Amino acid sequence: MCDLLRINTDRGEMINDGQSRFSINGKPIYHFLGTSTFSEYTVVHVGQVAKINPEAPLDKVCVLSCGMSTGFGATVNVAKPKKGQSVAIFGLGAVGLAAAEGARVSGASRIIGVDLNPSRFELAKNFGVTEFVNPKDHNKPVQEVIAEMTGGGVDRSVECTGSIQAMISAFECVHDGWGVAVLVGVPSKDDAFKTHPVNLLNERTLKGTFFGNYKPRTDIPAVVERYMNKELELDKFITHSVPFSEINKAFEYMLAGEGLRCVIRMDA
Amino acid sequence: MCDLLRINTDRGEMINDGQSRFSINGKPIYHFLGTSTFSEYTVVHVGQVAKINPEAPLDKVCVLSCGMSTGFGATVNVAKPKKGQSVAIFGLGAVGLAAAEGARVSGASRIIGVDLNPSRFELAKNFGVTEFVNPKDHNKPVQEVIAEMTGGGVDRSVECTGSIQAMISAFECVHDGWGVAVLVGVPSKDDAFKTHPVNLLNERTLKGTFFGNYKPRTDIPAVVERYMNKELELDKFITHSVPFSEINKAFEYMLAGEGLRCVIRMDA
Repeated sequence: MCDLLRINTDRGEMINDGQSRFSINGKPIYHFLGTSTFSEYTVVHVGQVAKINPEAPLDKVCVLSCGMSTGFGATVNVAKPKKGQSVAIFGLGAVGLAAAEGARVSGASRIIGVDLNPSRFELAKNFGVTEFVNPKDHNKPVQEVIAEMTGGGVDRSVECTGSIQAMISAFECVHDGWGVAVLVGVPSKDDAFKTHPVNLLNERTLKGTFFGNYKPRTDIPAVVERYMNKELELDKFITHSVPFSEINKAFEYMLAGEGLRCVIRMDA
Repeated sequence: MCDLLRINTDRGEMINDGQSRFSINGKPIYHFLGTSTFSEYTVVHVGQVAKINPEAPLDKVCVLSCGMSTGFGATVNVAKPKKGQSVAIFGLGAVGLAAAEGARVSGASRIIGVDLNPSRFELAKNFGVTEFVNPKDHNKPVQEVIAEMTGGGVDRSVECTGSIQAMISAFECVHDGWGVAVLVGVPSKDDAFKTHPVNLLNERTLKGTFFGNYKPRTDIPAVVERYMNKELELDKFITHSVPFSEINKAFEYMLAGEGLRCVIRMDA
């Protein structure tokens, strides 16, 4: 977690001179997250550039952005399920499905998807989810449901909702003795993670992750290779594609919660 | 964490027949924690016997009991500081000093002891503690004091008090990106561990441990060897020694908080 380049949504300028490199009619346009990728050419700090395989199709690997790498990395780099283990994924949006994809690639035997929206289960099957739990269908906490399904708890859980209640459930649904829960979702500012500390004493581990613990510059090229080797599937994450001139449609899809990832094609 | 033999203070009987093996004048005497070690001969489940080096002095290695192994193991098996790293120890009772001893043996460069009782610091130096923080001496949270002392936080922390506030401080005093906090202390039933989950997102890890993650039967013989090889020092933990006939004195020392460990000699 580089202090210098740490993601900072408030910093819209270059680090060396505190100036922006863009303007419209003399008015400065700031660098969103230090990247400003919605322009054909951009200026970024050298530490924010990763060189990837030149054969990689940019209109596919571009989805290896924040959410995708965060979810996939949360499973493969942080939760690290062993082959044959069980994994619960809380939240089956794009990040959660990327986490499920990580569990599938790791050889998990059971991938339990937890979501309040049952319409997501059908799609989730493509990402390796084998079972589905809707907390609304049960009159006890979802962690107890999962404990019953698995004889005491899952081996790993990955929380991708940002809901503090889901975070607590994700921690409490892992097995004593070796269970690892990984928190991915970004919580609200006023949330407090609360659990009875006996859950920690029982040899469970709670881990947080940022960007799936990937160091973007050194690690993203290898993730691209996993896609090139057909180990990791990206195409199924891309549900929409629009030309740059229709970029606002992409935002509409996002706000409406439609699909997973919309690729914005700079060539059109 | 064996389900069969898991420590259960309510179970004072043998597992196979639900009976006690002791009695006085026909009245059953129960098996405390399944061991009943305050008797010259005892009957225990085979899974609760560990064969140790026959050369080991029993009046020393007996202190490798719950507290000592818990503290030492919490550091060497769970927190796992690397050589040269910094470690904060919350609580400098016998368990905390065993945790400090684990940090010393691991080659930690700084061992920061945190305790409300400044009289404990002098003794703690023998266990490798290099710096002392008394939360009462500061008008800000101790985690902020430690962050200032260490340029952002310690690499590892081990909490050995059982105070929920110390648990939260122990977690919040580790460094973003790699910090690991280990909770050893047994909390009260009604406590709740509360932290802002952003602390977890910043790639910190929170771990619990039970008996220092030692599997007693297979691991305790190796800990005894570490003592026999003079790597781990036990003698400094033994501050009192009484013959069996004065066993109640040992309980008096304990209740008065005097010293660290009192050995009860069965030979006298």
